[in-house]
Amino acid sequence: MPLKIDHLGIAVESIEQTLPLYEGPIGLKIVHEEVIADQKVHAVFLQVGESTVELLEPTAPDSPIAIFLQKKGPGIHHIAYAVEDIEAKLAEAKAAGIRLIDEKPRPGGHGKIIAFLHPKDTFGVLTEYCQRID
Amino acid sequence: MPLKIDHLGIAVESIEQTLPLYEGPIGLKIVHEEVIADQKVHAVFLQVGESTVELLEPTAPDSPIAIFLQKKGPGIHHIAYAVEDIEAKLAEAKAAGIRLIDEKPRPGGHGKIIAFLHPKDTFGVLTEYCQRID
Repeated sequence: MPLKIDHLGIAVESIEQTLPLYEGPIGLKIVHEEVIADQKVHAVFLQVGESTVELLEPTAPDSPIAIFLQKKGPGIHHIAYAVEDIEAKLAEAKAAGIRLIDEKPRPGGHGKIIAFLHPKDTFGVLTEYCQRID
Repeated sequence: MPLKIDHLGIAVESIEQTLPLYEGPIGLKIVHEEVIADQKVHAVFLQVGESTVELLEPTAPDSPIAIFLQKKGPGIHHIAYAVEDIEAKLAEAKAAGIRLIDEKPRPGGHGKIIAFLHPKDTFGVLTEYCQRID
């Protein structure tokens, strides 16, 4: 069973323009920020309870987030579940016939390894597993 | 500051078809189920850490979820933050120039009062506040 919602990824055109909403009326606090070169995104994490909201801004036109923004506009991009054994969870998904975007976990942001399930096999919900490694 | 992610609403064509994914490989457990007549949805809540995933299936063709499914297909529909004082949070949002879908909180599922902010003012993210009343 997943431990918690690790984070909720939100695709934004501009972190700078979006932050006043999240730091202001919604009232969250930034706990981490990084550029994830691999995914061509600038990510800002804001704490809410045991989870975070991850604002994702593309750093290149061919970033998956840039492509998402072009197709669907800004909005919720994915849900990430914190798991204890990501390899076991991926094997379980595969055994259930779910296609994996990542057959093997890869480095994600924030000291974690991550892997995505294919949204065509998860009823349109881009689903990530992540496991702390530090 | 919100207390936590209360739930993540996911629009589905069929709860029956979707549950094997969430109860199976993802590995969540149902903690609540109800028909919310007001919103014309059948909702199933699955626990994950301190939050829940809410699967939402329309019960009528004019349900907001039916309209969402027609426009965007199945996928993540909204994020709900648990707050201690929903009236204060709505006033704060309004003061920041955010349009409210619900000027006043209304009964939601699961013993809560809820209100939605307008996604046009929250960068495409349908955002709900909810407060426990029981």
